[in-house]
Parts: sequence; structure tokens; C-alpha cells
Amino acid sequence: MSSTIKPAKTDILSAALRIRPHIHRTPVLTSENLSNLLGCTLYFKCENMQKAGAFKSRGACNAVFSLDDESAKRGVATHSSGNHAAALARAAALRGIDAHIVMPSNSSKVKIAAVQSYGGKITYCEPNLASRESTVAKVIADTGAVEIHPYNDLRIIAGQATAALEMIEDHPDLYIILSPIGGGGLLSGTALSAFYFSENAKVIATEPEQANDAYQSFQQKKFVPSVNPNTIADGLRTSLGSFTFPIILEHVSDIVTVTEAEIAVAMRLVWERMKIIIEPSSAVPVAALLAKKVDVMGKNVGIILSGGNVDLDELPWN
Amino acid sequence: MSSTIKPAKTDILSAALRIRPHIHRTPVLTSENLSNLLGCTLYFKCENMQKAGAFKSRGACNAVFSLDDESAKRGVATHSSGNHAAALARAAALRGIDAHIVMPSNSSKVKIAAVQSYGGKITYCEPNLASRESTVAKVIADTGAVEIHPYNDLRIIAGQATAALEMIEDHPDLYIILSPIGGGGLLSGTALSAFYFSENAKVIATEPEQANDAYQSFQQKKFVPSVNPNTIADGLRTSLGSFTFPIILEHVSDIVTVTEAEIAVAMRLVWERMKIIIEPSSAVPVAALLAKKVDVMGKNVGIILSGGNVDLDELPWN
Repeated sequence: MSSTIKPAKTDILSAALRIRPHIHRTPVLTSENLSNLLGCTLYFKCENMQKAGAFKSRGACNAVFSLDDESAKRGVATHSSGNHAAALARAAALRGIDAHIVMPSNSSKVKIAAVQSYGGKITYCEPNLASRESTVAKVIADTGAVEIHPYNDLRIIAGQATAALEMIEDHPDLYIILSPIGGGGLLSGTALSAFYFSENAKVIATEPEQANDAYQSFQQKKFVPSVNPNTIADGLRTSLGSFTFPIILEHVSDIVTVTEAEIAVAMRLVWERMKIIIEPSSAVPVAALLAKKVDVMGKNVGIILSGGNVDLDELPWN
Repeated sequence: MSSTIKPAKTDILSAALRIRPHIHRTPVLTSENLSNLLGCTLYFKCENMQKAGAFKSRGACNAVFSLDDESAKRGVATHSSGNHAAALARAAALRGIDAHIVMPSNSSKVKIAAVQSYGGKITYCEPNLASRESTVAKVIADTGAVEIHPYNDLRIIAGQATAALEMIEDHPDLYIILSPIGGGGLLSGTALSAFYFSENAKVIATEPEQANDAYQSFQQKKFVPSVNPNTIADGLRTSLGSFTFPIILEHVSDIVTVTEAEIAVAMRLVWERMKIIIEPSSAVPVAALLAKKVDVMGKNVGIILSGGNVDLDELPWN
């Protein structure tokens, strides 16, 4: 038996039931064009079409709806400049509780507007981790809110795992599942779902070369923090967590990296050929296939398209 | 009995069978967000995800695969600067015959590349209708190819009708179906499918105000040509045809128009909220709803998203 602390099979199944009323069962799209180009059969789990535009709604809903009423009425809090912020604000609104979101003062207007549209209460901080953490601590001290970390939380991991669970239900014969890796919430959940629910799907993580802390951590089998990540894949700049990293070490087959140019090319290719909007983070696994970093010839390959929140005024090819 | 010349119910059902191996049955997507915004339940028929990126593949495949072997081996010809050109080239390649495509010399590189990618043989002409028609006539004289007009052809109309047929099969309870109108191939086919296959779905056409020849023709009940159309909806600049116009007069309930600004806003809204890429022509019916030009409160509304071929370097909000 492994001693790794991780969501059990039943935790993921419970999460799926708990969040079902609040999320989309997103479509799994195929693309003959891209499948032919890459010599395999591709299945794209479209979390870009998820509520609030990213898989983050799964974990956020699972965490918020797991709370007992006493805890819930104190509200929830987090620090995030991205998709988790909007997803948590939305989940809290659905439960009728407050969401206190600490955001760096330089967050994009689009992200701020998304949080506000769901009624999230924003507290701005300096754009560094120390300020983010101290500001959240102060908000929690002031309000009694329950912290919901973006990824290093078993309820979040179990929630994110439901994306791969659904894909495996729809396509039980996947040989490989590819996912991007940032803090590891999506990846660890994906790896657990593959372990619990698939016959023998391997999970391979894909990461920007210029934010390759997970790759380094995986190779060295010890935690390496993300320092000055410099990637357009804005969802993948964070460090691994104390819960996510051990699960990844145990259940992920490999981590491969791609360049910024490869990410931009892959993103544009998916937009042009599939007519769907994916954010740069979602293009990372596609980039890994295009760059032949993973051997998938003739296989059934699942790709989790993690999100579709893009500032249309700031496209990487403009 | 009407004396209008039009595809019969069986022509459309035959077209559906004939083209099935060569096209996608495209998904019908919903959007809770846009439905709530517009106070109705929206169903989006995603022809932007169709082969070659537009509904045009339906008509082109129906026309090409309707030909007897003797005619087919002479090849097909058309003039088009847009989606019909690529769709016809693709259909011809599938049948193993030549496609002679006359394109204006100022056609976009993206459109030229699409035709070339399917092996179409391009002849360039001056960018005006007289040159387009005389050049096609010369190509046909030289090659004996069969002309496949982009819209004024009963085989094309029957093919385009299959998009609405599929949507009605999936959602029999539509109250209104909205379609853009250019030359009227998609619209007349849509109106015929609503007439033959739905309980009582009304069909309403939507057109750019700055290319409102169909609106004028419909109001005056006589053909008004498209003169100097000035719209970003590049699929909707053409005049009605001698087959399409009478069908439209008989089977379409209304034609409404929208401004260029309304089209651009609607296009961006669909990209942002639904995470799918639609071309400006597809945004026209959405624009009509946003501008409250059609009363749809509380109803089930089908929208045909006609295509997704956009030059990502030339977006209307850049």
C-alpha cells in the first residue's frame, strides 16, 4: 500500500455526484485533421467550454459544496490571479456565500471582471507570493473564511479528477492521457482517475520549458520551486504542492517540456483546425505531440483542454 | 400547389444520405450564458466545425456526388473567393476529379491556401463579376467541366438544407430558426427543411444592413442586386439567385438587418462566452437577437453558425 495522501476512488466518485448540478459535462471532440497530422486518434476533453471557462469550476464546486453549513456561512477565501478565482467566486455564489479573492494589483482587467461578474469580493495585494499569502491570512483573520487553495487541497484534486473520469467513461480505450501541469491539481486528479477508472491509460504531463519546475522536480524526485517562470501559458507558472507532488511522482509516467514558440503554434493550429478557443496552457499538450515529444503513433490519445480564457486583444501571434 | 421550382422533400433526404460519408454531423451546442442574456433557449448548429470550416461542404458534396460518372470525369468548375471554393475543391478531390476554381486576384492568402490544400486548380481573374463569369466560361469551354454555382443550383440548395434537417432531428421543438443570408443557398435550404421536417418552425433571415439586397428584394418582392456591399461578413456580399429568391419569398417569414458594429460585438461575444470560433457571417443572426430585432422571449431558437473561417491576423476588434 502506498502511504501517499490522496483522494480515494470514492472521493472522486462523490465529487462527480456533488458537482454534477453545477458544472457542464463537457463534450469530447475529435479532429480527423489533427489526428491524421499526428498519426493517432485524438480525443479532446473540452474544459475550455466548462463553466467559467476552465476545469477549475470542478474543484471549486467540490470544495465549496463539501463544506458543512457552519463552515460555509463564514465564506471562502483564496489568492489567485486566474481561473481559480473566477471559479471559486462562481461556486460560492451558487451556494449563497461570500468569496474573498485576493488578486495581485496587476491582474488583467478580464480576470478581475470575471471575478466581479460572479460577485467575488476582491482584495488587491502586491504582485508577489509573500504579499498574496499575507493578504489572504489577513482576510481570513478578519472574516473567518475557509481557505480554498487553488490546487494543494484534496477536495480540489478530487474535483479536477472528474474531467478525466468523464473522458474515460466516454472513451474507455485511451492509451495515453495528456494534461498540462501548473500547480498539479489537474494533473494529480487526472493521474488518479486514470489509475482508478481506466484499464491502463498512462498519464503524461506537459509543461512549458520556461516554467519547468515540475519537470525538474519529477527528474530529481524532490521539490523544485517555480522561479521566474516566463511563459505565455499563464495557468502553468505556479509551483507544485505538498499534496500534488507525491501523487504525481507515484502516478504520472513522464513529464515533457515544450518551447514558447511550440505553444503558440499549437494554440493557433487548434483554433484554425478545430474552430475552438483554447488558452495557451491548453495548447501545451498539443505542442508536445506536434514536437514529437511523446510516442503516440496509432494510439488513442486523450488530451485535456484545460481552459479557454484568453484576452482576445492580446493574442500571441499579434 | 406552388409553382416554385425547388428541391422536394426526397431530394433533401437523398442529399443527406449521399453526403453522410463525406461530412460531419456537426454538434448542436447550447449556451446557458447567452440563453439567459437573450431570454430564450438557444441551439447553435455548429457548421463552423464542418469539413472545410463551413456548411458549404454539404452542397458541394451533394452536387459533386450527384454527377454521373461521364459528367464527373470532366471535372467541376466554379467562381468563388470564399468557402464554396474550398468545399468544392475538397468534394472533387474526394471523388477523384478535377476542380477548376476561378478566384479574384485579390483573394486572401488564407482562402487561396485552403483551395490549394485540397488540390483545386486555380485560375485568377479580375475582382469583378464580369471577369469572374467570363473566366469561368472560358475554363468550362477549355475543359468541359461541369459548373457548380455556389448557391443558385438545386443540388446545392438540397445539400445546404441538410444542416437544418439535422438540427430539427436533434431538436424538433424549435420555434424559430435563424440563418444568415448571402446568395440564399443556406437560407432557402433551411426554409425548405423547416417547411418539410419541422412542426411549425419559422425561418427568419438575418443580413448586414450594409449588404441589404435580400432585405430590399424581400420587401419589394422583386430582385434587387447587391451593389457595393460593405460588410465584414464576407460570405454575405452576393446577390440572390433565380432559384433561391422564389423559395425565400415563399418560405421565409422575415428578413432583418444588423449593423457592422452589432456583427463585431456578436462575434466577439460568441468567441468569449462559447469558446468557439465563428466567422463574421455566422455572427449576423446572433447580432439580430442581441439587437432585439426578433422577438424570441421564452422560445426555443435555432441558429445556424454557418462557418468558422477567419483570418486570425485580421480580427475585427484589432
